[in-house]
Amino acid sequence: MPLGERYGGDKSESRYCGVETDFDDDMPNLLSLNIHGGFDFVIATLMDPNYRPSLVDDDTSRSHALPFAGSDLVLSPSQWSSHVVGKISSWIDLDSEDETLRKDSEIALKQEIAWASHLSLQACLLPTPKGTCCANYAKCLNQILQNLGSMQLWLRIPLEKSEDDTDARNPDFMGEGHNDSWELWNSFRLLCEHHSQLSVALDILSSLPSASSVARWFGEPVRAAIINTNSFLTNARGYPCLSKRQQRLTTAFFDHSIQIVISGQPVHNIPLGASESNVDNNAEGGWRHPLKSYLDYVAFLYQKMDPLPEQERFEFGYRDYLQSPLQPLMDNLEAQTYETFEKDTVKYSQYQRAVAKALVDRVSDENASSVTTVLMVVGAGRGPLVRASLQAAEETERKLKIYAVEKNPNAVVTLHSLVKLEGWEERVTIVSCDMRNWNAPEKADILVSELLGSFGDNELSPECLDGAQRFLKEDGISIPSSYTSFIQPVTACKLYNDIKSHKDLLHFETAYVVKLHRVARLAHTQPVFTFTHPEDLSKTSNQRYKKLRFDIPSDTGSSLIHGFAGYFDATLYKYVHLGIEPSTATPNMFSWFPIFFPLRMPVYVQPGTPLEVHFWRCCGSTKVWYEWCVTSPSASAMHNTNGRS
Amino acid sequence: MPLGERYGGDKSESRYCGVETDFDDDMPNLLSLNIHGGFDFVIATLMDPNYRPSLVDDDTSRSHALPFAGSDLVLSPSQWSSHVVGKISSWIDLDSEDETLRKDSEIALKQEIAWASHLSLQACLLPTPKGTCCANYAKCLNQILQNLGSMQLWLRIPLEKSEDDTDARNPDFMGEGHNDSWELWNSFRLLCEHHSQLSVALDILSSLPSASSVARWFGEPVRAAIINTNSFLTNARGYPCLSKRQQRLTTAFFDHSIQIVISGQPVHNIPLGASESNVDNNAEGGWRHPLKSYLDYVAFLYQKMDPLPEQERFEFGYRDYLQSPLQPLMDNLEAQTYETFEKDTVKYSQYQRAVAKALVDRVSDENASSVTTVLMVVGAGRGPLVRASLQAAEETERKLKIYAVEKNPNAVVTLHSLVKLEGWEERVTIVSCDMRNWNAPEKADILVSELLGSFGDNELSPECLDGAQRFLKEDGISIPSSYTSFIQPVTACKLYNDIKSHKDLLHFETAYVVKLHRVARLAHTQPVFTFTHPEDLSKTSNQRYKKLRFDIPSDTGSSLIHGFAGYFDATLYKYVHLGIEPSTATPNMFSWFPIFFPLRMPVYVQPGTPLEVHFWRCCGSTKVWYEWCVTSPSASAMHNTNGRS
Repeated sequence: MPLGERYGGDKSESRYCGVETDFDDDMPNLLSLNIHGGFDFVIATLMDPNYRPSLVDDDTSRSHALPFAGSDLVLSPSQWSSHVVGKISSWIDLDSEDETLRKDSEIALKQEIAWASHLSLQACLLPTPKGTCCANYAKCLNQILQNLGSMQLWLRIPLEKSEDDTDARNPDFMGEGHNDSWELWNSFRLLCEHHSQLSVALDILSSLPSASSVARWFGEPVRAAIINTNSFLTNARGYPCLSKRQQRLTTAFFDHSIQIVISGQPVHNIPLGASESNVDNNAEGGWRHPLKSYLDYVAFLYQKMDPLPEQERFEFGYRDYLQSPLQPLMDNLEAQTYETFEKDTVKYSQYQRAVAKALVDRVSDENASSVTTVLMVVGAGRGPLVRASLQAAEETERKLKIYAVEKNPNAVVTLHSLVKLEGWEERVTIVSCDMRNWNAPEKADILVSELLGSFGDNELSPECLDGAQRFLKEDGISIPSSYTSFIQPVTACKLYNDIKSHKDLLHFETAYVVKLHRVARLAHTQPVFTFTHPEDLSKTSNQRYKKLRFDIPSDTGSSLIHGFAGYFDATLYKYVHLGIEPSTATPNMFSWFPIFFPLRMPVYVQPGTPLEVHFWRCCGSTKVWYEWCVTSPSASAMHNTNGRS
Repeated sequence: MPLGERYGGDKSESRYCGVETDFDDDMPNLLSLNIHGGFDFVIATLMDPNYRPSLVDDDTSRSHALPFAGSDLVLSPSQWSSHVVGKISSWIDLDSEDETLRKDSEIALKQEIAWASHLSLQACLLPTPKGTCCANYAKCLNQILQNLGSMQLWLRIPLEKSEDDTDARNPDFMGEGHNDSWELWNSFRLLCEHHSQLSVALDILSSLPSASSVARWFGEPVRAAIINTNSFLTNARGYPCLSKRQQRLTTAFFDHSIQIVISGQPVHNIPLGASESNVDNNAEGGWRHPLKSYLDYVAFLYQKMDPLPEQERFEFGYRDYLQSPLQPLMDNLEAQTYETFEKDTVKYSQYQRAVAKALVDRVSDENASSVTTVLMVVGAGRGPLVRASLQAAEETERKLKIYAVEKNPNAVVTLHSLVKLEGWEERVTIVSCDMRNWNAPEKADILVSELLGSFGDNELSPECLDGAQRFLKEDGISIPSSYTSFIQPVTACKLYNDIKSHKDLLHFETAYVVKLHRVARLAHTQPVFTFTHPEDLSKTSNQRYKKLRFDIPSDTGSSLIHGFAGYFDATLYKYVHLGIEPSTATPNMFSWFPIFFPLRMPVYVQPGTPLEVHFWRCCGSTKVWYEWCVTSPSASAMHNTNGRS
């Protein structure tokens, strides 16, 4: 039975809680006990743990079945697939020095996975690699993955990393016995080429590595977190509970659709007759699943999570979903898109504040009733900036004349009816025309626009505003007056795999708009390109080149960079800003998702090694594009040369 | 005029010697003087060195031509293309902190290369990157390379590397000012994705880095070596000469088709009236090219090279040419192939020695006239092993009965006529049959075969001999009695590019037979798989797994691994061996070229970091294949999973 309902309708997998069980020949009983006990699924050993292929007598083997836990008929197909995750024998060690064990391991691994496939299980839990080398394990698994149906393979990895930095800086340490379990996973998945059916089940130990080290895993395909009963503390009443850090981690797992699995023997002696309110269990003659109090605690954590804020609920379906950026200069937007953007009240109230501030700066209180400020909205759409500007005028009691320039004739229709409806005819002149071709009858004091993309300049705001600058008085104000793009390196396995599935270069050289969720942000953002308006056009070009050096915190351990998350921050006017750069983001604004610049080959960065990145904004006669590359720790290929993608 | 003729007909580019010249408006005169002076081509500055795009007045620029050295008409098209390499302005610095210089550099680079393309020059010499960062330079060049005709771009790189190992072990050193010029080249070519038109011109300085560091360059696309007059020593007679190491290096350049270019001012004062035998110059009124004595010395080095041995001449056309390995089990060989193999007298005399030794061990001198040894040749072809065995019998005065088993009916025809011609009918029984299907009438004392591939077991010798073992007496002898494969990591830019040009995965997961020439061997070979015959078949399989760790000598500096060169060594019988493993190779044998296992992504290895490699020999029910991967310094993808390629 699910852990509970989260307000806002979290329908993710993390509502389901599993339990790891010992080998049991009687699978129906095993399943029934655990499901009745409150768990949603079991992680069940499929094969008798005493079985070894090399011990089977060749002569008798042909007439004997393999010692699996029950036949496929003991459960219904839907029971198998909904409630059982297969646990592959934990004695398996494919990188053992002992050749017999290695060969037995290979045979057993193939037999057990073939059996799990036959049962149509959704997933199998694979044993943790035993040593520091996992090449032969990866080679066998990679062979299996090439011919696997839809089953997921969860590689069991302990969440551990020693904090000894001196070790990590020694180049020899890779081969010698490193103790960052992420390294093991990273080698494994590189050898298996980020196979989309290979994922991770994390074993949560009682002590946790540093926060930045743990954070790496949120960019990885973690499906389950296995918490051993040993990792639980005991509360004042004798019940199991988790430390504050473990609680926060568990909540983060829930938030990332990672399922919790309880493992181990009960180690808390719950006082008999203690105040238990679970009626179901009492009704069944007092039988209680021995791990029920652990499950109850996990359910308690699930239920006490903050409800998803409205904005997050709205954006839930967009999480980690790659979209191509808008090209408003080339295409006319649809009504639906306007509708969405106009709902972003936070954005327009920032614009209103900026215009108000500009009006007051431009016209003193004494002149308020005599001087009329000329304001042009370039790209007026269906009018939200016109409204914000008029409200600013009202608020500051300044006189305002607005030219609303819009090239999309469909939006102009709405704009006309809006002006009529609101009775703005006196103050607003609608210009149905591409701003690039318009000849303004007079020059403006203030130029207002909302042409910014997720990466600031990526929707050609610099080029549009340079063009529109001819309408602006020498001392006029542009709102926004400047904007800066930012990037940070991220691990984003899911995005990388989605891009890779296209099997072409083009998709690896495209920047995507994406609600980043399952990513690990590995360093603070850094500014990339800044544009200021108005600008001395004779002196500057809109080409840019920036070299950035990121130092990933050394307690993170090594990491794999799949690409760069991009953001912007805009100064609308003086202190009024607007943006999505995480540390300064305008709250509750939903017009922009971040942008993602992928790398064709993920870059592996060891602790203490700087990550050096180069970004270019290139301008040709007919297009504007970005190129990017990495030069340290080692050089990548140049991305998007000549804007080819 | 070429440097000379090398015995054996070396027709490579290295016969031509060039000279680097200063800017001269009078290109016809410049060319004429240098060609008359004995050089084959000039590296000539194309643009006035004082030109800077930003200093050109915008208004006048439209009416003025760019300050190139002469128009395209001053030389004939064939003169331009045969005798002139364009030298791009050396002031160009695309990674300068000075933005004006950076922009000027970008404009000038594009203008000059466009001009060189217009002139159909074969190559341009690009200035050395100024700092340690070359990202912007690489980005611009990569843009140019995407739209370049057939012209080569030679990036000028000084041949230098400090020998300070402590620096190299510091992970921070990459970004901070490393002093291994190979690193610069490596970043550059990775950023340009190994573009086949981007190559290297090495500046040879007076002091050379360590031998292993220099050796790396022989795996790179080096086209020219520029020797400055300053790097020459002075001999007892006052003439320029090179140090022993420089001489060996120059010879190695000749051997790798790398052209020598003389650069700089004459710094040796040749005594007037010294004994000069050059009639041409004296005839021209005594005028002598100021650099003639340097050119003469280079020509002297060229001419005094050892002539190419016959075997090398025979193999010259195969250098670095990728071939697919033979599959004699599936296909019948052609007469031409037999012809070639049979010419390898060294190989068969080794077989003869092995058989002789086995005969003597098997039959004592006393029994020599009474006991007849039964020998089977499996895969007799057109009879060379039959002949070698009979000669061994004659030499040791042992009695021999031979079964010659051959599956190719075309070869059997030749075999029959050979037996008749030589009068061997009494001693040789021809069996026209696949050895897998043959029922031998008696068991053999000795089983002789030549089923080895370049990598030993890669032509299925283990499987064939396991099958043939049923013909062998319990205490019988197999010749070969064992064989081992070996690999070593190599830089092989040319091979990598040839494979990459196929643009598919298959070609990166294939092993090739190739006469390795333009490769850098980065570490000693290590053994991979060993097979022994006869073998206890009930206990062993022919599957193999080997993990290897290569330590590249730390004075090499960093390196890039494009793949692995593979070899074999076989013990025919006791001390008689046969093989191509470089340190123990049988001399003057030409039946086998090495094998090459490519890596899909080249692996960058820093000094002091071990290279860890894994090889598997996998056996399915219908095929045998290799898989391979790298796990340190970082994990590669698994290659050829399930033998897919």
